[in-house]
Amino acid sequence: MKIAFAGKGGTGKTTLAGAMITLLARHRKVLAVDADPNSNLANVLGIPNGSAIKPIVEMRDLIYDRMEIKPDITPGPVPGSFYKLNPRIDDIPEKFMRKRNNVNLIVMGTVDAGGSGCVCPESTFLRELLKHLVLNEKEDIVMDMEAGIEHLGRSTAGSMDCLVIVVEPTLTSIETAGRIKRLAQDLKMNTRFIGNKIKTKQDEDFIIKKLGEGTILGTVSFYQDMNRIDKGGSIMDLPHDAGILLEVDKILKSLTKMESSDEQKKVTG
Amino acid sequence: MKIAFAGKGGTGKTTLAGAMITLLARHRKVLAVDADPNSNLANVLGIPNGSAIKPIVEMRDLIYDRMEIKPDITPGPVPGSFYKLNPRIDDIPEKFMRKRNNVNLIVMGTVDAGGSGCVCPESTFLRELLKHLVLNEKEDIVMDMEAGIEHLGRSTAGSMDCLVIVVEPTLTSIETAGRIKRLAQDLKMNTRFIGNKIKTKQDEDFIIKKLGEGTILGTVSFYQDMNRIDKGGSIMDLPHDAGILLEVDKILKSLTKMESSDEQKKVTG
Repeated sequence: MKIAFAGKGGTGKTTLAGAMITLLARHRKVLAVDADPNSNLANVLGIPNGSAIKPIVEMRDLIYDRMEIKPDITPGPVPGSFYKLNPRIDDIPEKFMRKRNNVNLIVMGTVDAGGSGCVCPESTFLRELLKHLVLNEKEDIVMDMEAGIEHLGRSTAGSMDCLVIVVEPTLTSIETAGRIKRLAQDLKMNTRFIGNKIKTKQDEDFIIKKLGEGTILGTVSFYQDMNRIDKGGSIMDLPHDAGILLEVDKILKSLTKMESSDEQKKVTG
Repeated sequence: MKIAFAGKGGTGKTTLAGAMITLLARHRKVLAVDADPNSNLANVLGIPNGSAIKPIVEMRDLIYDRMEIKPDITPGPVPGSFYKLNPRIDDIPEKFMRKRNNVNLIVMGTVDAGGSGCVCPESTFLRELLKHLVLNEKEDIVMDMEAGIEHLGRSTAGSMDCLVIVVEPTLTSIETAGRIKRLAQDLKMNTRFIGNKIKTKQDEDFIIKKLGEGTILGTVSFYQDMNRIDKGGSIMDLPHDAGILLEVDKILKSLTKMESSDEQKKVTG
């Protein structure tokens, strides 16, 4: 499975992506991709010194070097000949990854200095890399997108199997989710909603009423003890029976079922 | 004053920007600028149908038209000759603004379709417009930035007097604030922190410990009744003595004092 997490800032994208990575990594190998220039996934996974991870965009320069292409002469995506290699996760050089148990974390890249420009080159390289990356059947990709909608203009997650859109019981997060869904449809992407930080039955009803019955993959409760995570703890270090992990596990099972039924339809249809 | 609000997604940038706009607009004229492609400022200000506001980037095309310049031949920022006009707020055509009381709201522009590209052209035009916009002494600008840090690469708020960075009592929002401050320093911008959603003395201490004593302009409490705003209410419709408005008013007074003392220093220094 290749899953990307999107949504308004602060809805809990990174937390839920971290929970899903934790769950998948119990039995499988996971490539965790932090596609947010304001990266936080390393924190949530308890991988120290995340901001020191060499961004994957620098792999482009490495490839250019090997091919003796100068980036200032051939800007934009890596030339097609690279993709003929159909890289696997194991082909990504160690220096661009940080490992923890079954998780390999890569980061897209960020803004290095004020006024130094946008993250378009980083987004383009990541999009093209993911498009050509080959997974074996014991491997998954979980990607945490930046807040908001710009990544959909760039189609960074365009090759993912599913875009999970996280909402909380606020109107602005639900409006953002609607925008994300519309833009993802332009890209012919599968989308699913998750309701997060649910405190009351009214919260759940509010989300269902706004997004429509039957559109929601599942909901996750508001956890007061997430305070510990907010203050610097990690999802991967939670006990196996932590409430949030149990709830996300249920969602993961629905998602796996849906994806395999979609796959079935593709095969038989 | 020209103030921009930045911070991690979900910290309350738009809410606090909306509160400041509401307070300033009691006595002055405010240009409210929504520089987030995932725009929400209209909601917070109770301006209906915000997503239908014509984005200011289309003014560029209007100018190009008048100058008989074709955007596909002359891309990027508007040519210098336009700026010789030194536009005032009143020079912005009505169709790009939505008014409510003393507030004029403009929106930067957004992603129209999945895969249609980034918001670099929108950001560039807004940056250049703000750089050349002339305010009279009864006018202020309050701008709500997109979540995260990419706008600092683009220097969209580069001409503002002050970048207010909103944090909540979470490690990730404080790390984001640190990144924003560093990037803003590259742009030689003034920055100030506001602590938001403070529930306990421990929350306040956590923020102060992480950001450093004396660096925080002020704090705003967590308001349970903000739930109403979250579910679709507007800050501008709160009663004058609403707690959040009283707290933001205190912050506004500190900010005004600091800015005028900075101004004094510039004059006498």
